[in-house]
Amino acid sequence: MTTSLRPRLIVADAQAAIEFYASAFGASELVRFTDDAGATVHAELTIGDAGFYLKDADSDDPDPLALGGTPVLLSLRVPTIDAVDGTVGAAVRHGATVIFPVADRDYGERDGRIADPFGHVWLIGSPLGVGAQ
Amino acid sequence: MTTSLRPRLIVADAQAAIEFYASAFGASELVRFTDDAGATVHAELTIGDAGFYLKDADSDDPDPLALGGTPVLLSLRVPTIDAVDGTVGAAVRHGATVIFPVADRDYGERDGRIADPFGHVWLIGSPLGVGAQ
Repeated sequence: MTTSLRPRLIVADAQAAIEFYASAFGASELVRFTDDAGATVHAELTIGDAGFYLKDADSDDPDPLALGGTPVLLSLRVPTIDAVDGTVGAAVRHGATVIFPVADRDYGERDGRIADPFGHVWLIGSPLGVGAQ
Repeated sequence: MTTSLRPRLIVADAQAAIEFYASAFGASELVRFTDDAGATVHAELTIGDAGFYLKDADSDDPDPLALGGTPVLLSLRVPTIDAVDGTVGAAVRHGATVIFPVADRDYGERDGRIADPFGHVWLIGSPLGVGAQ
């Protein structure tokens, strides 16, 4: 097998977070394991081909709202520049806040930056192709 | 094109971090952009097939040591269970600290958890196959 790297997001409410990622990003939940108290100790989600993990915060692992920020930005590249606007719009309708609005950037991407309701920060973008402007 | 998700790590010293990830994880640096002051505003690295981004901390983006933690764990799956021990060993020799030592887990992985010198937390693992124990 090959090497893979996936982010594992710590959240204050895994149930609500999984619902948000499904509604805002069209994420599918593949697996979820909970402990006896009902906390999610491991869940696996995919957005299109892109996989990530998620778990409830605990004494080892604080969530971004408890920490007061995050030092890992989540760069989500979507298939088209129209999907950038659509994905950011859906996220905002479901409770995300805009940090940097969607715009065409001089580094050749259309992108925007949002914070989701659980404090994770996403960069949502797609390359500006020929004829895309 | 398809959907992709990559973590973008905020670090206090991008130059040192890139050197650490190369030494500890065998990461290759594909691109790096710096501003007039020499700060890295965007770098792209790969570990085998797995890509991630990196940038220096700034007023928008704090690093984990400044924040006092991280709410995103970095799940690095390596090709073999021997590579788990090798990768964790190399990381520790280059300044990482062990959070949970490498061990065979009842969820079917051999893995360990480390903090790198820049405060990012990595879960390094590989599936326990038949005959691997």
